[in-house]
Amino acid sequence: MEILEMSEAECLRKLGQTKFGRLACARDNQPYVVPVYFAFDGRHIYGFTTLGQKVEWMRLNPQVCLEIDERSSDDTWLSVVVFGRYEELPDEPRFGTARTIAHQLLQQRSAIWWEPATSSKRNKSLALTPIVYRIHIRQITGYRTSPNEE
Amino acid sequence: MEILEMSEAECLRKLGQTKFGRLACARDNQPYVVPVYFAFDGRHIYGFTTLGQKVEWMRLNPQVCLEIDERSSDDTWLSVVVFGRYEELPDEPRFGTARTIAHQLLQQRSAIWWEPATSSKRNKSLALTPIVYRIHIRQITGYRTSPNEE
Repeated sequence: MEILEMSEAECLRKLGQTKFGRLACARDNQPYVVPVYFAFDGRHIYGFTTLGQKVEWMRLNPQVCLEIDERSSDDTWLSVVVFGRYEELPDEPRFGTARTIAHQLLQQRSAIWWEPATSSKRNKSLALTPIVYRIHIRQITGYRTSPNEE
Repeated sequence: MEILEMSEAECLRKLGQTKFGRLACARDNQPYVVPVYFAFDGRHIYGFTTLGQKVEWMRLNPQVCLEIDERSSDDTWLSVVVFGRYEELPDEPRFGTARTIAHQLLQQRSAIWWEPATSSKRNKSLALTPIVYRIHIRQITGYRTSPNEE
């Protein structure tokens, strides 16, 4: 099994074809990783979430990592890793355009609420308030097995 | 869709039934998440890896997070998150028992090499030296949709 580094263009294309990944944040050097739905417009990664540990941590430390992967067998897989910066898009005029892009993209991709936080018994109303965010990509790398079967 | 918190026993059972997850580490509060194969003996999580960014970071900061999830549909899923501590198990007599457990478990589970690091052109011999590790579980939590279809 040969493993190849993917080009940046290939990584970005794969990001655009994917809607589900794992998002990691960190507080005091303790990482925390959760599954997320997202959408990518060729520039930013957009997502919805609700208030909870992940958002609290990302507000304190916006450095995040998004990972996507595909496995059709143990010998055929790819993985793309994004290092980026979390930015919340509150319901304010200056974020209007960005929020519209986020909503349109996420609707197109049939994104659904996939948030353990929504089940929180505590602060239920707060937990159900949607939070729109985007991730600014700082670095993207990927590996895949060869041959490329796409 | 109702979302339920899983009991610790249920989380641990699911961990024992799973062999693939995403492991996050962090350096200078920058998280990094990669897919990994692992095995669980009811107490520790065991894995193989090779020298690369992940190991370098975990040696500097052993705080890690392992996430596993299952989705049979958008409405039926579960996710378990482990906060833990990385410990390397070098080929030394004092780690002999732990390494034997790791090897046996990982063989049983048909674990394979799934390591972008092995393709590294730099330090190829170093990158191919297997590193055995285990994760000490500090906290485990999980959520799943209801009803439980297991």
